Amino acid sequence: MAHTAIGYAAQSATSDLAPFHFERRDPRPDDVVIDILYCGVCHSDLHTARNDWGWTAYPIVPGHEIIGRVREVGAQVTRFKAGDPVGVGCMVDSCRHCKPCEHEEEQYCKEGSTFTYGGKDRHDGSFTQGGYSDRIVVSERFVLKVPETLDLRGAAPLLCAGITTWSPLRHWKVGPGSQVAVVGLGGLGHMGLKLAKALGAEVTLFTRSKGKEADARKLGADRIVLSTDTEQMAAVSDRFDLIIDTVPYVHDLNPYLPTLATDGTLVLVGYLGPLDPFLNTTSMVLSRKSVAESLIGGTRETQEMLDFCGEHGITSDVEVIRMDGINAAYERLLKSDVKYRFVIDMATLKG
Amino acid sequence: MAHTAIGYAAQSATSDLAPFHFERRDPRPDDVVIDILYCGVCHSDLHTARNDWGWTAYPIVPGHEIIGRVREVGAQVTRFKAGDPVGVGCMVDSCRHCKPCEHEEEQYCKEGSTFTYGGKDRHDGSFTQGGYSDRIVVSERFVLKVPETLDLRGAAPLLCAGITTWSPLRHWKVGPGSQVAVVGLGGLGHMGLKLAKALGAEVTLFTRSKGKEADARKLGADRIVLSTDTEQMAAVSDRFDLIIDTVPYVHDLNPYLPTLATDGTLVLVGYLGPLDPFLNTTSMVLSRKSVAESLIGGTRETQEMLDFCGEHGITSDVEVIRMDGINAAYERLLKSDVKYRFVIDMATLKG
Repeated sequence: MAHTAIGYAAQSATSDLAPFHFERRDPRPDDVVIDILYCGVCHSDLHTARNDWGWTAYPIVPGHEIIGRVREVGAQVTRFKAGDPVGVGCMVDSCRHCKPCEHEEEQYCKEGSTFTYGGKDRHDGSFTQGGYSDRIVVSERFVLKVPETLDLRGAAPLLCAGITTWSPLRHWKVGPGSQVAVVGLGGLGHMGLKLAKALGAEVTLFTRSKGKEADARKLGADRIVLSTDTEQMAAVSDRFDLIIDTVPYVHDLNPYLPTLATDGTLVLVGYLGPLDPFLNTTSMVLSRKSVAESLIGGTRETQEMLDFCGEHGITSDVEVIRMDGINAAYERLLKSDVKYRFVIDMATLKG
Repeated sequence: MAHTAIGYAAQSATSDLAPFHFERRDPRPDDVVIDILYCGVCHSDLHTARNDWGWTAYPIVPGHEIIGRVREVGAQVTRFKAGDPVGVGCMVDSCRHCKPCEHEEEQYCKEGSTFTYGGKDRHDGSFTQGGYSDRIVVSERFVLKVPETLDLRGAAPLLCAGITTWSPLRHWKVGPGSQVAVVGLGGLGHMGLKLAKALGAEVTLFTRSKGKEADARKLGADRIVLSTDTEQMAAVSDRFDLIIDTVPYVHDLNPYLPTLATDGTLVLVGYLGPLDPFLNTTSMVLSRKSVAESLIGGTRETQEMLDFCGEHGITSDVEVIRMDGINAAYERLLKSDVKYRFVIDMATLKG
């Protein structure tokens, strides 16, 4: 029998999130049933709750930085057993047969991956609901093993903020000797600093705000550059093999292009849309520079990142909140008033 | 004693090219003295002659698709001897010690390479003059061996149009099984088709003009797509590993982005400047696509390309003109009225 789950849902673009009961399916043979312990709060949750992207169907339960423990498994499940600490990220399914899926890069699934919330289940057509809830049922392939050594609260944001910065670091082959810069110090940015540093790179933070130096250095930055200071920008010209730009709104990329080294890439992970003002390629041609977009990461890379974080003791810096504090947290999120990720303690869900 | 060369120079942005006498230096120990046989006519020649980029110093002798035979060599020259067929491209010197120079990618020299014309000699400070002339003196490193099997007239455009398309094909690892598209069928575009095909790729031409199908197929295109036809564009969505965009003026890149496959790159080789209209990254994020710029190629890749062309019998399709026909050729170039490159027969220089 299906489980009547309790979660927090938005009923409309203007309503606060509030308690909501809905059905979680009985496990299919390949399913893992997970009791959710913690769920990170991603900016996408807020965008979706408020229908900023125009595609939200209500009611919607957000949440795709999910940490929990296995409650039970379907008959075909081989990698998990009850009690295992596990994670679920932004996807719960994909076509599984296209080239990206074959490479376990399901985020680029040619038929479109099934998002953890607001997606449509490929078998029964139901809408998926996310991690602001007591339980979730997910096909084994999209369940990640979480190292027991990690603090589970701080591990939650690895499932989105972590993998979103990890994937480009790996794709563009960052390692010892690499010069990496991160633009913006938020949920994604602080993970970018930690992961790039742990991979052996020399790491720079670009920020528009003074006063972030001490925090950034603690997170792994070797250098902080005020992007509004032309002298500081000139001092890092021709330096970076990879710039991970985490800024979630439209902004001018042109000042960063001269800081790329030969064959360097600026990859956007926080913004998509028109590049306004015009991207000027003049400073790209003399060193074969690229501008790219990257989207979260697939199951292979996500597991690899979790294992890496386990080995290196890396988690997100989080502020744990109660479930009924989510609406206040959203307001603070809009003001970037969090270091560096809210995580909901799901034990507070039932009062 | 320096040689009094004869060439064709522009004396101002508005004057026709006309005969001009100037000095070529005596060979330094590392220099190769070349009797020029043919010189290709690149759009850059015209831009420079008319000061379209604002940096031209007059008088200027254009020409950087140079084919000739060695007349004599300096004492330290080891790779060439009198009589050898040789080529000179867009560069005649560079710093030789930066990282790109160490990799023989001198086009990305951190101190700036010395262009074949309109550049400043690194030793005596004189201005360099190009290949619309009877003779040129070039340091051995920047002289390329030209396979004896190639038609020397058709080989001239390899030194710029050829290497400009070859370098991105190699950098982005095009080979059998690759899907490559070329935007624009001019001097660069027709070389892009030939070289991509010879490397084993399946090759598509994007064009805005009907009626190029038969020619494009002869040059190696497996498929021709009218970029103004939305149905034809939709039919090649998610297809190309590499798009080489040879269009030399500002144009909308957005229609091409959906035709890139996962991890595909659109590389600009003909245009630099603001990307107007705004580049919209929305169609890039779902498949980790990139937009890049590439500039000609270095000595290593240029020699590799010439050797490859020798093995595969590849030359440019050219229309050979007389030196005194250059001004009429420029007018036709402005109307894209050439298949696909003018080459000056330097034997006509002296009457």
